[in-house]
Amino acid sequence: MSSEKERELKLQALRKAREQEEQARKRLSQIKYKLIVLSGKGGVGKSFITANLAAALASKGFEVGVLDADVHGPSIPKMFGVHGQAMYAGPAGLLPIVGVGGVRVVSADLMLPDEETALIWRGPLKTGFIRELLSMVAWSPLDFLLVDLPPGTGDEPLTIAQLIKDLSGAIVVTTPSDLTRIIVKKAITFCKQLNVSLLGIVNNMSHFTCPVCGTRHYIFGQAGTSRLVEETGVRVLADIPIDPRINESVENGVPFVLAYPESEASRSLLDLADKVAEILKASPRPKGETSSL
Amino acid sequence: MSSEKERELKLQALRKAREQEEQARKRLSQIKYKLIVLSGKGGVGKSFITANLAAALASKGFEVGVLDADVHGPSIPKMFGVHGQAMYAGPAGLLPIVGVGGVRVVSADLMLPDEETALIWRGPLKTGFIRELLSMVAWSPLDFLLVDLPPGTGDEPLTIAQLIKDLSGAIVVTTPSDLTRIIVKKAITFCKQLNVSLLGIVNNMSHFTCPVCGTRHYIFGQAGTSRLVEETGVRVLADIPIDPRINESVENGVPFVLAYPESEASRSLLDLADKVAEILKASPRPKGETSSL
Repeated sequence: MSSEKERELKLQALRKAREQEEQARKRLSQIKYKLIVLSGKGGVGKSFITANLAAALASKGFEVGVLDADVHGPSIPKMFGVHGQAMYAGPAGLLPIVGVGGVRVVSADLMLPDEETALIWRGPLKTGFIRELLSMVAWSPLDFLLVDLPPGTGDEPLTIAQLIKDLSGAIVVTTPSDLTRIIVKKAITFCKQLNVSLLGIVNNMSHFTCPVCGTRHYIFGQAGTSRLVEETGVRVLADIPIDPRINESVENGVPFVLAYPESEASRSLLDLADKVAEILKASPRPKGETSSL
Repeated sequence: MSSEKERELKLQALRKAREQEEQARKRLSQIKYKLIVLSGKGGVGKSFITANLAAALASKGFEVGVLDADVHGPSIPKMFGVHGQAMYAGPAGLLPIVGVGGVRVVSADLMLPDEETALIWRGPLKTGFIRELLSMVAWSPLDFLLVDLPPGTGDEPLTIAQLIKDLSGAIVVTTPSDLTRIIVKKAITFCKQLNVSLLGIVNNMSHFTCPVCGTRHYIFGQAGTSRLVEETGVRVLADIPIDPRINESVENGVPFVLAYPESEASRSLLDLADKVAEILKASPRPKGETSSL
């Protein structure tokens, strides 16, 4: 290809990206609070916390949406009982699937032909996908949009932080182990470097109470989270205990706070929703832009 | 910049990449068996399994190395008690740090100034980093190299599969929950698409036995792994139970199989090492190349 043509194609791609960004910004302006949920480390229950915080907020009368930005390991649809369904496009744009509890869900998983399909994508493809997705989704006016980020501080978090310049804040999910502490600190660094305000930490899998003998076990340790708070000064918003019924509720596709509202974990999650709503109400709406790393 | 110059720079970069690949291949030819450990999903204990499989193999007299390819969330150094140390270069190349149990460890974490530093890198940077790392490390002759991959099916797994064309096989780590099953299936798809032979599944966090009353709890469910086996036909190599002392051993930087060799989890891990060594001994050494996706 001549370098003339090459340059023309590059320019076209850039223009398209700009248009999509503009479109995404317009669509997102209908949403009052936009939060990212991240962790640095995988498997700490980030999607579980995102889904249940969303369901808890919805149960309190808010309009809530969840964007599943984990294209390699999407798990949000399953948690809302909509795994296997497909989003379709109406005249207004791509329509989120309404999950159990009334939460609007958008995920790459709702666009794949079957559950075996893996998106073996490198960074630029993922960036393009998320940008295109945000430019297309017709969320309708929402009080809260929660963005469930994949683990790490790579392409997807960077893309989201750049596309959603008026992020209301971030919630960092952790577990009490010391190993997690080190990696979660990196997520906190990420928020600071990108100027995203950190609402606080959710300490997931904090303990397990044996249902037979009542003994409380700190299965994943205890020291990590308190050290994290000491070292970073970030507050803990909630401690969520392990409950074997959590797995069951995920399998049944019903958010745990709706399936077992009286459990210790659910009470903590509902309390978390109140705290998040209060903090955001009290903080000034962001006008500034996040840094353009 | 003139397009002439641009082209020259691109060519230079390509030549450098080729040279590094060649160098990496030479260095890796000193290693008998090269295994990747992956999961698709984060937090299933992939690094824990990798580290303890390595320590178990080393305890049986093998020469073992671990490459921590999770640049965003490196946890291998901590598990071998070498977190905070720095690799340095000798005349032969970059020297791995020898961890507890005699395992040679290479990780991005052993090159960072402090534990807060996050590598906020996009894909191409990560690919370049791993390629350069593999071209520089002087492993010395090894029986086993275990590569601990980050979650997902993105840049790092692709890069490793392309750089190490004579991979001996892959181990997929999972937990018993149904949510994990779906995401781990994607890792299995990844192996199939890249022609990497799958040795089997390790079912981590299979259950928890209350040390007070002796009751066995299936904290993360039970159905996922058996469904995974049914659906994919891949065998389970080991079931590893939860043990609160695992977290303690990670904090102390001593692989669990060495700290508590008599525990149920350690016995399963030592047995896993025997199985892996047997399977590899029985299988023909790979000569073919993995596909060039």
